Amino acid sequence: MTEHRYPSADIAAIERVIRERRDIRQFAPGALPEGLLGRLIDAAHLAPSVGYMQPWRFVRIASSATREALWGIVDAERRATAAALPTRAADFLKLKIDGIREAAEVLVVALMPGREAHIFGRRTLPEMDLASTACAIQNMWLLARAEGVGLGWVSFFDPDEVARLLAMPPGSRPVAILCLGPVAEFPPVPVLESQGWGKRLPLDEVLFEDRWKAGAGGTPTAY
Amino acid sequence: MTEHRYPSADIAAIERVIRERRDIRQFAPGALPEGLLGRLIDAAHLAPSVGYMQPWRFVRIASSATREALWGIVDAERRATAAALPTRAADFLKLKIDGIREAAEVLVVALMPGREAHIFGRRTLPEMDLASTACAIQNMWLLARAEGVGLGWVSFFDPDEVARLLAMPPGSRPVAILCLGPVAEFPPVPVLESQGWGKRLPLDEVLFEDRWKAGAGGTPTAY
Repeated sequence: MTEHRYPSADIAAIERVIRERRDIRQFAPGALPEGLLGRLIDAAHLAPSVGYMQPWRFVRIASSATREALWGIVDAERRATAAALPTRAADFLKLKIDGIREAAEVLVVALMPGREAHIFGRRTLPEMDLASTACAIQNMWLLARAEGVGLGWVSFFDPDEVARLLAMPPGSRPVAILCLGPVAEFPPVPVLESQGWGKRLPLDEVLFEDRWKAGAGGTPTAY
Repeated sequence: MTEHRYPSADIAAIERVIRERRDIRQFAPGALPEGLLGRLIDAAHLAPSVGYMQPWRFVRIASSATREALWGIVDAERRATAAALPTRAADFLKLKIDGIREAAEVLVVALMPGREAHIFGRRTLPEMDLASTACAIQNMWLLARAEGVGLGWVSFFDPDEVARLLAMPPGSRPVAILCLGPVAEFPPVPVLESQGWGKRLPLDEVLFEDRWKAGAGGTPTAY
């Protein structure tokens, strides 16, 4: 217990939103509450970043033609993924994996160009730019949930095609298509769990002491 | 405004913690509050993950010998980074870049082995495993801040050396050394900002509409 500790009710709210956040693919009609998109971007932009590089860039999809083209790129990858799964392709094709056509807002999140000049904290781990960007998205995700707004991170796409569609400069890389909007419900457990695509691992499979636990391997796939 | 919205005071707490979270390198003596480490791991383990793969693994550093060996790996990379900076090596060497020796707890976070089998959501974007793991760390980071506990994500290390030290299996990859513990203060602005290593970018350099903004490039380096 320190002087820097927040009130217990505030901590409870933070633990609640961490627990109740969901990756949303089913959206309800309607717009985002007034001003929320800006607050979500602000929350993202307050994320930590390696060497303070702030590698994240956000493209808000405004035109329906661009949105439809994005959806086409995602749908092609959805089919390619189904074809690549060793089993359960038919099950997979029944899943709704994006809300690009229905969500109130769609954002493409990309890593900026010119990242190779930033070696502070990433000389040996260049992928820290993506890590920072994921922290930014997690900030948005939590705030959106608290506001009662769903967010889904779609990673079914060919990054080169998305880059071309949005006239992204060489060296940049799209890493997320975010769908945001009102939802009918936040499922009590992740949809991939209720649909049999995975289970929360027991803690002793993810937490070790002083060295890797002998024999501990990767999470099994469900396909 | 939806039925799923949290009370305004809870939303304010979440926005506050997003704003006040800091990347901490200066720790004060003392242990973590009883039970907090477990709650932080739980918060991480509730993060979203691509295809529900839960790629994160946590190694709690218990022995002082392992902690000291980790510090040595980080210190070597600190010197290598200084040597690689085009300018400001001397400034850089004055920065405190880790709290491995002083922090109450040190965790190494790694990506699990066997990730190549997980193609759900990462056939074209295999790096989504790291993105999920970064979301997990951001959950911990926010909860730690609300509890008045500092967290620093150290990425100055040779991943092969850390993997060797912790007897990590082939195919796994360490991506973070987290230092956690009581602090004297949470700086009002990021240390890298007050020390002249960067400035928060204006929003119009990170947010574009419908396509990349013509001429928008990467964040400039300060070295």
